[in-house]
Amino acid sequence: MPNPTAAMLVIGDEILSGRTRDSNMHFLAGELTKHGVDLKEARVVADNSPAIVAALQELSARYDHLFTSGGIGPTHDDITADCVAEAFGQSIHVRDDAFALLDAYYKAEGREFNAARQRMARIPEKATLIDNPVSIAPGFTVENVHVMAGVPSVFQAMVASVLPGITGGAPLLSQSLTIQRGEGDLAGPLGELAAEFSDLSIGSYPFQKNGAFGANIVIRGTDGARIDAAMTKLAEVFA
Amino acid sequence: MPNPTAAMLVIGDEILSGRTRDSNMHFLAGELTKHGVDLKEARVVADNSPAIVAALQELSARYDHLFTSGGIGPTHDDITADCVAEAFGQSIHVRDDAFALLDAYYKAEGREFNAARQRMARIPEKATLIDNPVSIAPGFTVENVHVMAGVPSVFQAMVASVLPGITGGAPLLSQSLTIQRGEGDLAGPLGELAAEFSDLSIGSYPFQKNGAFGANIVIRGTDGARIDAAMTKLAEVFA
Repeated sequence: MPNPTAAMLVIGDEILSGRTRDSNMHFLAGELTKHGVDLKEARVVADNSPAIVAALQELSARYDHLFTSGGIGPTHDDITADCVAEAFGQSIHVRDDAFALLDAYYKAEGREFNAARQRMARIPEKATLIDNPVSIAPGFTVENVHVMAGVPSVFQAMVASVLPGITGGAPLLSQSLTIQRGEGDLAGPLGELAAEFSDLSIGSYPFQKNGAFGANIVIRGTDGARIDAAMTKLAEVFA
Repeated sequence: MPNPTAAMLVIGDEILSGRTRDSNMHFLAGELTKHGVDLKEARVVADNSPAIVAALQELSARYDHLFTSGGIGPTHDDITADCVAEAFGQSIHVRDDAFALLDAYYKAEGREFNAARQRMARIPEKATLIDNPVSIAPGFTVENVHVMAGVPSVFQAMVASVLPGITGGAPLLSQSLTIQRGEGDLAGPLGELAAEFSDLSIGSYPFQKNGAFGANIVIRGTDGARIDAAMTKLAEVFA
């Protein structure tokens, strides 16, 4: 059975303006690979309601899972929850379960649970909450869409809360070999290897270091023995 | 006149598997912002021909410019040029201009200009070449799509070659203020400020440092005097 598929949607003007360098996509990619879920596509859109709604609908329809990051805080530019409700035709209001979590947290902290913070308890009616051990304000899952925070420490904690509930496939395994020759010298034999081992994915990632050309060859697949066989052959060819 | 719009398409399995953390999107975002081009969307797709062709067609139709990175080297997994040709209904073959550049380069280097390297001279028939001062193999522009390498040093050099030929708008200006309070305490006044200065984009980026909550407030726009006015008001409110 093929692995389940996934997409990621990063939401935030700050990524597209170049102010912030996203790190959540790279983190999620690694976690999904370990869990046996194939990340097929990632997108970044601005804090713009029509753009977010369209991407939510398109990606959730096309893949088994959609993971989002960003836009679920208390400020005026946090519009993700409303967009998810709109995309799935659900109502959205301050929910008792999320309200209770946040109310208890701010009481214990001695900080005001004001109207802005109560906005973080606005959750689509049929969503299930995603645990946030870092700063309590929950993420949520609506159908196959997992809505998480943009702050990396919170995003990572939410991914850890969500992944155990998702059925993964065979983890993607990989081996790599660094070859100290220009990629153009490797391309011929590498193409033959890729044709012979068409069940594996063979990637070539060139680099230039201290004036010398080289490439990291990465062989990926779910069958460790096949990867071993391809890697042995690769090593022989370039010995 | 509004600024021209752009999208970016990052092509490569290695980003989606979590092996490599993309840096080209962040670099391009910053350069476009300085140049007065609004990056509206970014996508990452795998080394998969139908996925690449569909994204090329969709994004080039929707935005004024599309910038791509990755998949133009000499190996079997480098399929971007063929996908661009297919997306725009152009033929693709080894072109004399690109061949001559590469031939001279490899002769001077004393390295073999073999069949794999000649693949890098395969360029769609109506493309114009993008200069690559780092490793010579050119990028190219087809209609409004600028096709560039994935290796960051080469990508950056190609962006420097392409941008001067693109008419930009007013550069996006920004000012930021760090406020040492929880985002929930800022959200109310910030929402009012955003409503008053609706011609500006006001973003709030929370952080937690040494146990204390804070947020960086970023005000962006093309009119420096308006940003000054909003920033003055912001500073007054939180003085």
